[in-house]
Amino acid sequence: MSRENEKIDSVTFHQQHAGKIAVTSKVNITSEEDLSVVYTPGVSEVCKAIANDENKVNTLTARGNMIAVVTDGTAVLGLGDIGPKAALPVMEGKSILFKQMAGLDAFPICLDTTHTEEIIAITKALQPNFAGINLEDISAPRCFEIEARLKEELDIPVFHDDQHGTAIVVLAALTNALKLVEKMHYDVKIVINGAGSAGIAIAKLLLEAGYSKISLVSLEGVLCRGESWLNATQNDIATRTNLTEQRGTLDDVIEHADVFIGVSGPLALTQAHIKTMRANPIIFALANPVPEIYPEDAIAAGAAVVGTGRSDYPNQINNLLAFPGIFKGILNAQSKHITMETKVAAAHAIASVIPESELNESFIIPSALNPNVTTAVAQAVEMHARQELALLTN
Amino acid sequence: MSRENEKIDSVTFHQQHAGKIAVTSKVNITSEEDLSVVYTPGVSEVCKAIANDENKVNTLTARGNMIAVVTDGTAVLGLGDIGPKAALPVMEGKSILFKQMAGLDAFPICLDTTHTEEIIAITKALQPNFAGINLEDISAPRCFEIEARLKEELDIPVFHDDQHGTAIVVLAALTNALKLVEKMHYDVKIVINGAGSAGIAIAKLLLEAGYSKISLVSLEGVLCRGESWLNATQNDIATRTNLTEQRGTLDDVIEHADVFIGVSGPLALTQAHIKTMRANPIIFALANPVPEIYPEDAIAAGAAVVGTGRSDYPNQINNLLAFPGIFKGILNAQSKHITMETKVAAAHAIASVIPESELNESFIIPSALNPNVTTAVAQAVEMHARQELALLTN
Repeated sequence: MSRENEKIDSVTFHQQHAGKIAVTSKVNITSEEDLSVVYTPGVSEVCKAIANDENKVNTLTARGNMIAVVTDGTAVLGLGDIGPKAALPVMEGKSILFKQMAGLDAFPICLDTTHTEEIIAITKALQPNFAGINLEDISAPRCFEIEARLKEELDIPVFHDDQHGTAIVVLAALTNALKLVEKMHYDVKIVINGAGSAGIAIAKLLLEAGYSKISLVSLEGVLCRGESWLNATQNDIATRTNLTEQRGTLDDVIEHADVFIGVSGPLALTQAHIKTMRANPIIFALANPVPEIYPEDAIAAGAAVVGTGRSDYPNQINNLLAFPGIFKGILNAQSKHITMETKVAAAHAIASVIPESELNESFIIPSALNPNVTTAVAQAVEMHARQELALLTN
Repeated sequence: MSRENEKIDSVTFHQQHAGKIAVTSKVNITSEEDLSVVYTPGVSEVCKAIANDENKVNTLTARGNMIAVVTDGTAVLGLGDIGPKAALPVMEGKSILFKQMAGLDAFPICLDTTHTEEIIAITKALQPNFAGINLEDISAPRCFEIEARLKEELDIPVFHDDQHGTAIVVLAALTNALKLVEKMHYDVKIVINGAGSAGIAIAKLLLEAGYSKISLVSLEGVLCRGESWLNATQNDIATRTNLTEQRGTLDDVIEHADVFIGVSGPLALTQAHIKTMRANPIIFALANPVPEIYPEDAIAAGAAVVGTGRSDYPNQINNLLAFPGIFKGILNAQSKHITMETKVAAAHAIASVIPESELNESFIIPSALNPNVTTAVAQAVEMHARQELALLTN
């Protein structure tokens, strides 16, 4: 299928189906009696049951299984700020993946506002309808404030997939890649190129998982606390990763590094860069559709393991491996807390789906459509969330 | 089925099904290639097509067929202000009726705020996701301001069903009832008991349809302009109906009336009232579950035709006869204007579904589940809306 054909096909496909989601009925009403059970007057008793005990909304309506996929359309795919209507095809895609992978109902909420406080207020006002909030494609740094406030102020789980979904799958891939090159996580020096929401979330999760030698690099250079061009979140992670307050560029920190993680832009990494790295370097070039370096070029320069965000190369680092199981597990546990430890557990669950005997340079991460992944993630998340809830109530 | 059994059944039914709606996928993803068409990278072209021409959102996503059922849970059924979570079973019921009767997708939006400006702002911010807004169970007088502002400020149709749906079905029933008693619409004297959102909307639509002798009565008495207890909307309709500035109570205006329309409360009308009315009175006692007068009592007092809101008596005046076809027709016409004339046309379409030869005292209005009704209403609404659009563009 040529690129030109793909382009025509996807638009035509969406037009033929009039989008990808439908709201359907679980009930077929064939008589006045049916109507009196699902609607008036019978429904009145259902309303009263919830008015008396609002937790019953999760068992007497579809709410208990319903996720909102919330965006303002400001950071969609590689397209940037295309607005809420143009973002809708992505959110519908996310919704049907929630359904297919985890059996969850998910509904797109594309908001016609980019004001942080309005997005927070609207999402809070929608809480009666949803059991969980998946934030999606909201640009940094607003996404940090929005997620932090909603986690604090809502009683349901909130998860910004662009941050944490990406971080979880990167950690999963790195876990398996290190087994292949026989390096230990506490030894390896990691460069994260790109200090937006994904890069920062990856750094935080790697710190949580015991990695300590991490450099974050943006277009302005290595993140170092106190630099005038840092936002508050960047300054915080610079403080936690760059303890020696090293300054410089990618050229400086890539030297003797073991791992490169690119969440930046096309062709940001060169073969010359790779040649300055330690032996058997691991390269995750996640920019889409053009990665930081093409896998064949990375391998020619000495890379031992290469992953990308693309489905047409081996080792696709795809959020789809994480978000359905994360939400399934946290809802099963009836918790709202998707903690750092839970995210690490989810990453290890993804990594463990591939038996060590089958691991190789072209197979460090399971296929995005492997149904065992969602099951494994959901189980790990549910178990951790239940343990944490038990600690909270002790 | 006894009342006690009904109660148990409806709650149990909702629990067994975990509510009534599901968000489903129109696509089965079985390969990486499928994924690349419905999600990344193919979906990127779909996003760009909408970014270039935002009207395409209605054909490339599910939005063109998607209705929001918006409430704040302040005036739910006869239960009153039970809150947004307890309102959800009703909104899910409405959603599945949209689907079954008109093939429309509808999603409940139960808002955790009762502030007029917040409800307006949130509904506006949700416009990227929906082709139409059905307002539901929002208490008066806030519902008037919310509907008027949204109609003005949104590019999609907005319809407060409790007002206009009820008014349309009452007009349909009255049209057929008058044929039976052989009275002309311009002659009959009508008393509307209850001056909330439904009563006022009924008065407005009857005026539009050529009825002129209308008295509106609330618990405080006959609506007369300038009275201190009127809200702005009530004062406006008092000015238009009570030209002679008559004061008094239901006891005064019911005398020599031809039609009683109750949207008030249980047992507000007595047999003594009916005996003071003109010959062959028409009684619509719509309070639920206990009507203004029970049909058997009304008939014993001399009523010629009786309608209620209940499914267990003849002549159920049920909004379900109107709202699915209203939205289907207005979306088919690609209009946002549900005008008074369009509503009158919808009412006449409902009335005309029963052939005159089949009309009788127990059959003035079609069954709520008669599929011909939605088709007839949708066609009438589409035709009128198209004609009005053509006039607007001339």
